[in-house]
Amino acid sequence: MTSENKDIENVAIIGLGYVGLPTSIAFHDSGFRVTGLDVDVNVVEKLSRGISHLSDSTIGWDIPYQSSRWKITSDYEEAVKSSDMVVITVPTPTHEDKTPDLSFVEMAMDSTIKNVKSRSGTIVVLESTVFPGVTRMLAERSAKKYDLVMGEDFQLAYSPERVSPGDIGKSASQVARIVGSIDEKVGMMLAEVYGKITSGGCTYVGEIEVAEAAKMVENTQRDIDIAFVNELSKTLPSIGLDVMDVLKAARTKWNFHYHEPGIGVGGHCIPVDPYYYIELCRKSGTKSEISPVSRMINESMPIFAVEKIKDLLNGAKGKEVLVLGYSYKPGLGDSRETPVKIMIEELEKNGTRVMIWDPFVEDADFPEWCENIDNPIGTECDMVVLATAHDDCLSLDWVRILKNCRSGVVFDGRRALDRSEMERIGWKYHGIGV
Amino acid sequence: MTSENKDIENVAIIGLGYVGLPTSIAFHDSGFRVTGLDVDVNVVEKLSRGISHLSDSTIGWDIPYQSSRWKITSDYEEAVKSSDMVVITVPTPTHEDKTPDLSFVEMAMDSTIKNVKSRSGTIVVLESTVFPGVTRMLAERSAKKYDLVMGEDFQLAYSPERVSPGDIGKSASQVARIVGSIDEKVGMMLAEVYGKITSGGCTYVGEIEVAEAAKMVENTQRDIDIAFVNELSKTLPSIGLDVMDVLKAARTKWNFHYHEPGIGVGGHCIPVDPYYYIELCRKSGTKSEISPVSRMINESMPIFAVEKIKDLLNGAKGKEVLVLGYSYKPGLGDSRETPVKIMIEELEKNGTRVMIWDPFVEDADFPEWCENIDNPIGTECDMVVLATAHDDCLSLDWVRILKNCRSGVVFDGRRALDRSEMERIGWKYHGIGV
Repeated sequence: MTSENKDIENVAIIGLGYVGLPTSIAFHDSGFRVTGLDVDVNVVEKLSRGISHLSDSTIGWDIPYQSSRWKITSDYEEAVKSSDMVVITVPTPTHEDKTPDLSFVEMAMDSTIKNVKSRSGTIVVLESTVFPGVTRMLAERSAKKYDLVMGEDFQLAYSPERVSPGDIGKSASQVARIVGSIDEKVGMMLAEVYGKITSGGCTYVGEIEVAEAAKMVENTQRDIDIAFVNELSKTLPSIGLDVMDVLKAARTKWNFHYHEPGIGVGGHCIPVDPYYYIELCRKSGTKSEISPVSRMINESMPIFAVEKIKDLLNGAKGKEVLVLGYSYKPGLGDSRETPVKIMIEELEKNGTRVMIWDPFVEDADFPEWCENIDNPIGTECDMVVLATAHDDCLSLDWVRILKNCRSGVVFDGRRALDRSEMERIGWKYHGIGV
Repeated sequence: MTSENKDIENVAIIGLGYVGLPTSIAFHDSGFRVTGLDVDVNVVEKLSRGISHLSDSTIGWDIPYQSSRWKITSDYEEAVKSSDMVVITVPTPTHEDKTPDLSFVEMAMDSTIKNVKSRSGTIVVLESTVFPGVTRMLAERSAKKYDLVMGEDFQLAYSPERVSPGDIGKSASQVARIVGSIDEKVGMMLAEVYGKITSGGCTYVGEIEVAEAAKMVENTQRDIDIAFVNELSKTLPSIGLDVMDVLKAARTKWNFHYHEPGIGVGGHCIPVDPYYYIELCRKSGTKSEISPVSRMINESMPIFAVEKIKDLLNGAKGKEVLVLGYSYKPGLGDSRETPVKIMIEELEKNGTRVMIWDPFVEDADFPEWCENIDNPIGTECDMVVLATAHDDCLSLDWVRILKNCRSGVVFDGRRALDRSEMERIGWKYHGIGV
């Protein structure tokens, strides 16, 4: 029996983070029997009681922990053996040296294939971002190891996650998807299966490598476009222009792509995926010219912000700065690759005392040395820096905060505060691109 | 009397090219009395008889040469003295060394202001692409020269043209516009005036420099985005992927910006405006990191194409290549900055005989040494190169062309031919990013 001949009823999701958890719920809510696996027993324990281990302000995830079609485990054998389809959604970060760290995918793929039943035709789908060729290579390696035949004992596919955590309308049950597979029939069938869990539909795009490349290209383009507006936030103020005035004017053109400049990009995708592309080029004997430049620009932003802050403070040493926001994105507690970390580290290096507030980030996720505070109201400081545009930051009582800010200077690292309103209530408004 | 107190009835348009002519017609058709000026007497002579000197397949410009509200001249005094508003739409190319050539704008601005009546409050609007500060600087210089006071004797504004020649829905009467002015009332009033000629509306964005920067930023971003897909057309084939398969998959994502790779960008904007941005950065003591890289990538494309063509021909020397298309854009006869020129020059240098066909381009616009032919059907050659995706090229009788092509190889420089259809009828299909 091969997979295309049977219906998909049981789905295992490997990795229950910002992608895996909502994907599991989307599969469950579309009628599938779901087994969610996470290697972190704390996560398993929480989710089994219906408690999310993630903080995301926009999604009221209703974890169906009492449903008979819902199971959470950390046992691969249990998850894989009972499933027609195994979806892998584990992180793909970079190493310290910015080369791709495929260890999570490798481990998940290997543990999955190890537990595949011979001749079961189990469909293994990777959703994590990788560069083209990785999915097939890892699967073939494990198949050989466990004496299984790819295309017979199991089928292989790749369908990049496109969830945009914290963004309304961009959840696992809404985004448009693509799928590539080693087998056309499997690919077409998976497009149908995914089409059931998302209102955005799913397109079969052919080979696995096409889908792998598409995901990498999407995020690399985004990094490039953001790099350009970040560069503009450095170049335009030198001739007296506020970058936001120019971007707002430009966005009236039908084909202009509006992005917001800021103290840098973060999270698990934009600062990471371009390195997968850069590495792919290197490995294949070509070279990316544009992506390394974009990375350089975006990575320079937290340090650029510190330079501006130092100028505004007349030197950073001994000064006290109140930083609002730590996660990489508004409405989320996710602090992976957050540029705020780089910024406050640099401030500390310069002898500044940093007090930081983020209502979404768990205490344990702040750097150890960092002074995270419970309430920004009433905190004495020399200057305030908006680092993440959480609604909770924007809607603070800025009149009261001003009373405790000795210089009266706010540095808007996200260009999210209303400049004229801030000036009206007495703030000296500065920020990226001003 | 200052300008904001009077109605605009008489409009002069300086420069009657791909932007000025449709803009003149748009003003006329919205009820204004229009005087069009061009320094080229041949253009004046043609337009006075209702004949367009431009080739643009998509716009059936109906030149209102018999209207009492329509006049064509090459006399600045006649055009400016009788007008409430003077709109300058002259070219802003680059010099050989890629620095901005402002000579046309300088001359047009100077000749306009020279003829402004004292205390008339004539509104001078520049539409040509410049970098921020140019409009004001040139106007101030001429004001001083002719002893006029800016803001009294005349008003100054900038409203970048956004016409996309040859593109349906992107004409002078359809595109969304912006306007900046030295005077808020004038700016608001001009937004209303422009709002009458275009269904896309017009937004007042504040200072002149904001509008100048917006235009420059729009086209620089476009150059950057195209550079990325062009880079992908070099890197992805090295791992066996067709760039078009990947881009089509990526474009299913809601925020992916789809652009077509090709043998290079041309025309009066994309290959030029980034140099205005690069020059602005240089002048203001900052530096663009990303735009020079994009320029380098896009400028490398015609040479990259020649390398591929040489490989396919097993050396270019003594071979005969039939090139279809010469202008920079489908449906247009405009060959300014066309990358096809670079490509065929390079082929010639390599000893290839180039035969070229473009139904839109005037004989005089081809390079002198170039063999432009009347009919591609029946022309014997070693290989066919699609260089401009004119419908007239795509819809040729490719079965007949194949009969006269010794290698049976077509190189699709625009990825506009249907690959599977071409292969079905017997062509060996190659191209950018294959």
